[in-house]
Amino acid sequence: MLKPSLALAAFALASPLSAQTAAPAPGAADAADADWRAIPDDEILVITLQGGHQTFLRLAPRYAPAHVANIRKLAQAHWWDGTSVYRVQDNYVTQWGDATESKPLPPTVIANPPAEYDWSRFDGVTTLAKPDSYAQRTGHSADGWPLATDGKAAWLTHCYGMVGVARDLAPSTGSGAELYTVIGHAPRHLDRNIAVVGRVIEGMQWLSSLPRGTGALGVYENAAERTAILSVRLATQLPEDERPRFQYRATDNPRFAAWIRSRENREPPFFTVPMGGADICNAQASIRRAQ
Amino acid sequence: MLKPSLALAAFALASPLSAQTAAPAPGAADAADADWRAIPDDEILVITLQGGHQTFLRLAPRYAPAHVANIRKLAQAHWWDGTSVYRVQDNYVTQWGDATESKPLPPTVIANPPAEYDWSRFDGVTTLAKPDSYAQRTGHSADGWPLATDGKAAWLTHCYGMVGVARDLAPSTGSGAELYTVIGHAPRHLDRNIAVVGRVIEGMQWLSSLPRGTGALGVYENAAERTAILSVRLATQLPEDERPRFQYRATDNPRFAAWIRSRENREPPFFTVPMGGADICNAQASIRRAQ
Repeated sequence: MLKPSLALAAFALASPLSAQTAAPAPGAADAADADWRAIPDDEILVITLQGGHQTFLRLAPRYAPAHVANIRKLAQAHWWDGTSVYRVQDNYVTQWGDATESKPLPPTVIANPPAEYDWSRFDGVTTLAKPDSYAQRTGHSADGWPLATDGKAAWLTHCYGMVGVARDLAPSTGSGAELYTVIGHAPRHLDRNIAVVGRVIEGMQWLSSLPRGTGALGVYENAAERTAILSVRLATQLPEDERPRFQYRATDNPRFAAWIRSRENREPPFFTVPMGGADICNAQASIRRAQ
Repeated sequence: MLKPSLALAAFALASPLSAQTAAPAPGAADAADADWRAIPDDEILVITLQGGHQTFLRLAPRYAPAHVANIRKLAQAHWWDGTSVYRVQDNYVTQWGDATESKPLPPTVIANPPAEYDWSRFDGVTTLAKPDSYAQRTGHSADGWPLATDGKAAWLTHCYGMVGVARDLAPSTGSGAELYTVIGHAPRHLDRNIAVVGRVIEGMQWLSSLPRGTGALGVYENAAERTAILSVRLATQLPEDERPRFQYRATDNPRFAAWIRSRENREPPFFTVPMGGADICNAQASIRRAQ
């Protein structure tokens, strides 16, 4: 929480050689070029909001295949065009889709897919030093997704910016037509109870800084308060030269492990007491635009 | 993450008797009247922003007495009037004070108070079931503050809405003139490294939904982007009949302990897998207007 005049100094401190050399030597926790891997076009969802603001999602088909299949069908059918962001609950979620809950789903979309809340494997995971209040171990899959385990099942964690599927009371699992993203402290009690289908990777501010809804659960009381959704498209639906290209930081390498250690033990001169651990949601793997 | 039509149903479910009786019987986790205790007027800070929006803070003089003494002097001197909110970093903090860092402090304000980062005691605490990644135990003090301990020291945790003191690099401790509140996932790595002086208890949305700054660390690049602070006053500076009155929920009773257990083990019909634990920042003690 530096005072503003130190903002630039703080960035300089992160790479102490940058003032003296044109190309600073990479630190042990810096990604190598090969650590950046392309995210496939059919895993990128582009949401264009009123005003032209865009938010980009990375989908997680490996973890929630049936829900992601639905989401792809909804995008291909232009189903979300003309829907809205209708719920913004402070320190919780921003939610979007059809506020009237009356728009018919495309016939190939499954209204209640299997409950894809758990994932069977916690291997190939770069783990954090400490357990947390919700799991025995947490860490990152090789392809950069945050996972937790109780020693049996594993699951994607509800960190800031993660995207989940709104649903009715159990046994409903939600189709994927109504989605939300976390805009506050990670509501990890939702883990294992809801399908997590992706993560916001750019443009989070267009969902997190919206006015909070004053109705029950943060739902806007008046339709005029909603933010219109102009379109939602998979990158594969866009012309090749207009597709946004992103890369995730692979975690299966000593550089990422060193980065995790650096998150768990922050360093002087700003920090004087390293905490010896970090929470998975304070150590999310980086995403960048392809370079 | 209920769909919108269920919003009201969800509230009804929280008190299953409400549909049938005029005054629903209180559940084991509901506060009794006597559990609500007045917050003293000299612990309430009223921030009035551009547009007339108000944000209310509860100060924590027991935990950071020298910093809170400074904050009271700054309010009494009207020091913040005409300053601004100048930094909004997504998933991190909103920060306010004198963006120019040139406004002289009142002479009685101590520029670098003692480092009030730790508190010596972790007794009288209603503890949570599980440790987290940052502490051996966490819980709530009898007067409703979130605390963590490593078995030796104890400290206030950087939960959503908690307020801390911006500072320069150590050994600076910050005067309290530049303050921030957490608007994202709890940055618990700041615990023990910064003075925590209070908590936003109403009007958080006026700080959390501001446009994000595009400069380094979320500082606004242009002065025109800042939100003006019209005034900051202790409730004691206001006429008696204009003072906002708040109450905290006391935690030293079985009802609060039952509420914590209910946060750790969410119930059907929405939840199907109770997590068996909760993070201190997902179980913050309630505050309400005096009734």
